[in-house]
Amino acid sequence: MPTDEVPPIAEMPTVEPEAPQVEHVDDDAVHADTTGYRQPEVDVDAVRTLLDGRYGEVRDLVRANLAEHARILVDEEEMSTADFRERVKDVVVMMASTGQTGMGFPQSYGGGGDIGASIAAFETLAFGDLSVLVKVGVQFGLFGGAILQLGTKPHHDAHLADLVSGRTMGCFAMTETGHGSNVQALGTVATYDVEAQEFVITTPDDASRKDYIGNAAAHAELAAVFAQLEVDGVRHGVHAFVVPIREGGRVVDGVRIEDCGPKMGLNGVDNGRIWFDHVRVPRTALLNQFAEVTPEGRYLSPIDNPNKRFFTMLGTLVQGRVCVGGAAINAAKVALTIATRYAVRRRQFEATSPDEEQLLLDYGMHQRRLFPLIARTYALHFAQEVVAGQLHDVFTGPGPIEEGNDEHARRMLESRAAGTKALGTWHATRTIQECREACGGAGYLSENRFAALKADTDVFTTFEGDNHVLLQLVAKGLLTDYASEFEDMDQFGMVRFVAGLAVETVIERTAVHKLVQSVRDLLPGGDRWDQEAGLLDPNYQLAMLRFREEHMLGGVARRLKRGIDQKMNPGAVFSRVQDHVIAAARAHTERLVLEAFVARTAALPDGDLKVALNLLSDLHALTTIEADRAWFMEHGRLSSARSKAISREISSLCRKIRPLAVDLVDAFGVPEEMLRSPELLTWGE
Amino acid sequence: MPTDEVPPIAEMPTVEPEAPQVEHVDDDAVHADTTGYRQPEVDVDAVRTLLDGRYGEVRDLVRANLAEHARILVDEEEMSTADFRERVKDVVVMMASTGQTGMGFPQSYGGGGDIGASIAAFETLAFGDLSVLVKVGVQFGLFGGAILQLGTKPHHDAHLADLVSGRTMGCFAMTETGHGSNVQALGTVATYDVEAQEFVITTPDDASRKDYIGNAAAHAELAAVFAQLEVDGVRHGVHAFVVPIREGGRVVDGVRIEDCGPKMGLNGVDNGRIWFDHVRVPRTALLNQFAEVTPEGRYLSPIDNPNKRFFTMLGTLVQGRVCVGGAAINAAKVALTIATRYAVRRRQFEATSPDEEQLLLDYGMHQRRLFPLIARTYALHFAQEVVAGQLHDVFTGPGPIEEGNDEHARRMLESRAAGTKALGTWHATRTIQECREACGGAGYLSENRFAALKADTDVFTTFEGDNHVLLQLVAKGLLTDYASEFEDMDQFGMVRFVAGLAVETVIERTAVHKLVQSVRDLLPGGDRWDQEAGLLDPNYQLAMLRFREEHMLGGVARRLKRGIDQKMNPGAVFSRVQDHVIAAARAHTERLVLEAFVARTAALPDGDLKVALNLLSDLHALTTIEADRAWFMEHGRLSSARSKAISREISSLCRKIRPLAVDLVDAFGVPEEMLRSPELLTWGE
Repeated sequence: MPTDEVPPIAEMPTVEPEAPQVEHVDDDAVHADTTGYRQPEVDVDAVRTLLDGRYGEVRDLVRANLAEHARILVDEEEMSTADFRERVKDVVVMMASTGQTGMGFPQSYGGGGDIGASIAAFETLAFGDLSVLVKVGVQFGLFGGAILQLGTKPHHDAHLADLVSGRTMGCFAMTETGHGSNVQALGTVATYDVEAQEFVITTPDDASRKDYIGNAAAHAELAAVFAQLEVDGVRHGVHAFVVPIREGGRVVDGVRIEDCGPKMGLNGVDNGRIWFDHVRVPRTALLNQFAEVTPEGRYLSPIDNPNKRFFTMLGTLVQGRVCVGGAAINAAKVALTIATRYAVRRRQFEATSPDEEQLLLDYGMHQRRLFPLIARTYALHFAQEVVAGQLHDVFTGPGPIEEGNDEHARRMLESRAAGTKALGTWHATRTIQECREACGGAGYLSENRFAALKADTDVFTTFEGDNHVLLQLVAKGLLTDYASEFEDMDQFGMVRFVAGLAVETVIERTAVHKLVQSVRDLLPGGDRWDQEAGLLDPNYQLAMLRFREEHMLGGVARRLKRGIDQKMNPGAVFSRVQDHVIAAARAHTERLVLEAFVARTAALPDGDLKVALNLLSDLHALTTIEADRAWFMEHGRLSSARSKAISREISSLCRKIRPLAVDLVDAFGVPEEMLRSPELLTWGE
Repeated sequence: MPTDEVPPIAEMPTVEPEAPQVEHVDDDAVHADTTGYRQPEVDVDAVRTLLDGRYGEVRDLVRANLAEHARILVDEEEMSTADFRERVKDVVVMMASTGQTGMGFPQSYGGGGDIGASIAAFETLAFGDLSVLVKVGVQFGLFGGAILQLGTKPHHDAHLADLVSGRTMGCFAMTETGHGSNVQALGTVATYDVEAQEFVITTPDDASRKDYIGNAAAHAELAAVFAQLEVDGVRHGVHAFVVPIREGGRVVDGVRIEDCGPKMGLNGVDNGRIWFDHVRVPRTALLNQFAEVTPEGRYLSPIDNPNKRFFTMLGTLVQGRVCVGGAAINAAKVALTIATRYAVRRRQFEATSPDEEQLLLDYGMHQRRLFPLIARTYALHFAQEVVAGQLHDVFTGPGPIEEGNDEHARRMLESRAAGTKALGTWHATRTIQECREACGGAGYLSENRFAALKADTDVFTTFEGDNHVLLQLVAKGLLTDYASEFEDMDQFGMVRFVAGLAVETVIERTAVHKLVQSVRDLLPGGDRWDQEAGLLDPNYQLAMLRFREEHMLGGVARRLKRGIDQKMNPGAVFSRVQDHVIAAARAHTERLVLEAFVARTAALPDGDLKVALNLLSDLHALTTIEADRAWFMEHGRLSSARSKAISREISSLCRKIRPLAVDLVDAFGVPEEMLRSPELLTWGE
């Protein structure tokens, strides 16, 4: 969607009028490849080792666990919902016993003490049944993460060992029916009763019932409940409390739980709704890492600003987003593996020979449908690796993160996690759909995996942050340069903040501003770099995405300013510029994704592996530019001739990737047991 | 995806170099509307009457039947697969008793004698449970259609009354595991045994087992079996036979049936696989409308050419495609109705006021997500109305269609049906997905309809013809001008045929060629029509889509010729040009869709209804151009400035549609009982 409506900021070369009668060289022509290209051989194990990164052993442990419990993929179809929920719970507990799910917790509580490992383990789990994945995410990521990050030693001592082992199941009771993305507007109240030294948790209305809470309908004994803390009539914003909701499997008095009922997918997860009717918990139930209420009812927090306190608390839970993004990318790998392997077995129509039907993957259109998705999956994989690495670094330390501990790095991480999650989950939705269609009617049968993949991943674009809301968060960070006021700004504040700066200031403060200049200097052609650089030069590809990002951000800043200057309501200004805001955030994240891919490939020693990865990196970069080529043309960065040349180059890359395609998906290392699809994958045997 | 790689055919104005420093008027500005636009009032009943067209009563009958059996939407979630299949069958039979499902059959057999009415009824059924829809399609459309169109009076007398009433259930056994889109390659054989005067039906291998056959796993007593007819050692191509597969509920000897097992959706339909082991049927089992085998074993057909005979037979079944396209469009209406009505109730974030959260539908992005889909749904609705009308006209006559009966009109109809089916079903997939995401987590709960809509419609892009294969069929028709040799051409033949013509000849023979000229003459600016005409002038919008279609077809012809001239294998040429071929077919169908919308709107008397429909027509036209604006820029038909102006105009149209949006979806007339979504639609009450 085009959104930029302002003239270019920098002096730009004008677009040359085209000479439409010039016949260009057409790649359709039969000609020997004159570039010296030699088809690489793909060493599947080497690519897989590269993809697995530093957590190969962890990933292999999860692969083995998945294979051992492979039967659950069939159980999902055959069992009743109630039975399947129990089955999923049992598998989760069995997996916990292997250490797989507790890697992010301190060793002193039975964990592995390695956050990076815990993300690698979670991502890999996405090759299997996704109810198991989400149940693991709820128990160890959300509930466990809340206890670990928002709680202090007494909470850790009381709960961590039991939750790491799966002896105690918990849930994460944040979302309410009427309050989803806007967590600050939650309606549940926790009032401090100074007499009893207890908090009283109450659901004031049905819009404030907790909703979609995983683990709530059947299994959780404890809940991390997010509620408005009220002390002596004063509200202090949203805080989290540990609240028992079941004892011995029975719902406790004052708590009402309702099953959310059947869902599109993930029916092995027991999502529920929770109402609290004056439920009393001790003062120590407050997870008091960032705020405390003294016995006598004094509210204390090291962070004075309530908005900032809220976002700091929420920021510690960023791991959930990183995990969902990684899981989505891995779910896409399962779909691509099946569709690609089927396409080198299944034949349709006598296209090149009257005697034999042609393999699906030898059709140009089929290559065009699948290969850019494979390339993008690699790109997102490496981008995810960067986010996961940053998360590991930011969160690895002597203990839970302290306020003031490199705030800027944390805001950057949160932004990057948000953007990668949005792109990764949309990619999964799109890829699984395309792969299903590419397998025809067979793709519709449950035994061929697409049914579960599609239904289960569908909500990934929504949970752990709605993708559009997340991209707005990314844009806010970019536009404010992650200012220290950042966490204290709502949409009103952000619009006013940006409007108060010169557009040039907004631009100059962005990281991309310097990058644009640095990469241009590497390219031939000076100001005409966009017309003279080679299409397969990664610096050209990066320059294009950096230019777009910078330009879009400038356009957003300009439009926000103009709206305020014209005395419009800041909210109305935001609403009108919203698609532009989101496009800028997307452009930013796309740039990070390509940078990750280019960097990883550039670091490889020369050889076939590098050649193969470069094909994918080029294909990803050029299809990304092609997808938005209208924008580049509108902004004078792409001539018609060059735009067409990009499309031809993509077709050429697809033909080069064709002989490598199966190896490239096999390198994802999805366990054979997770593919199922018995007929698709043995077609013709 | 860009595919055109040739210079423009016609002399074209060169693109003016842009003056990037010219500040353009920005629609963000707060200014009174100076165009004299006055917001129309939408009379929901009037719009609904317009949409319902000449079959309002039929549609209302189906609406009433759907409401009466609304409980089935819940049964789908709660019942076992086996029970639900029985439930679906019962509902189908009950609906049959109201006459709803038999409208396309002759009155003498208990039908309604009105093909148009039967399509209207089927489309409307798509507001409800889609297993019921598909079961109706199998029984009355596919099985019933085969008996009616391919059989003769003895078959009609023997079967029609029973199948129209639902007393006899049948299935349509065409697709085989290894032979889907390529029906001519079916492996099942029917050998004539002259001694016994019987056909012997045999499944030679597992790739030739019948697969995905609806009604086969549980209910069908009869099957219309498509098999290679062999008489005295000579193959005559695919023919259809009536074969009993069950008697009194028991599978007959020689027939083996296997359940396809759980599917992504449509689990109320009993899909199965069928093997035939020398199953004998009498000579009269051949559905002999187009071919006959005499008792002594002579093969007779009024159509000499086997390819042509095959496609003529298949062509009589075009109704199935028309029905699926219409059903998909109506399924999209259900999703849009829920998402739009939710968006005027649900609030999120205090965007314009610190005291109240903003309605979702007041966000610019939310409008951008939903309104172009509403507009396109209207456009496709009217395009579907045209196809259904043409089908009615072509097939309405004294009896089943005869060979030679206006072949050209039939080929045009088949092509149009194929294109509309492809666009309609892809639109449904995309729309339902977007609406689910626009309803957030609530969209994931089964009671809110998206789960079933998504899962059930997913296979629509594949069955009744894979969309990509269908678009190739469309392109073949365009490139060969539906030549009389048309039905005798495979891909080889088509490539050679086109390569044998001058490109100018290909172009001049197309219908669009004349249209391009005629519409240009209506526009100001002469050769610069694309730069001077108003964006909201429908002639401009049509001229753009016609130009694109003509130009893409010329490009395809040129590339096919060049490949052949360079001595490439015709199949390899086709594979390389395939995405271009499909893009041309899509461009053609998009043009037909817009023409249908423009024509329907232009015919309205002046007034609010016309104003409202014009907003939608403009939005549809401009978003269609915007989606491919890169192509138009690449081909000199859109300047950067004008491209940006189109995007601004779209935003402006969205704001004008905002106050009308709920009325515009209510006018779809989806029965309230079909929406379910109790909490979404009463939000805040």
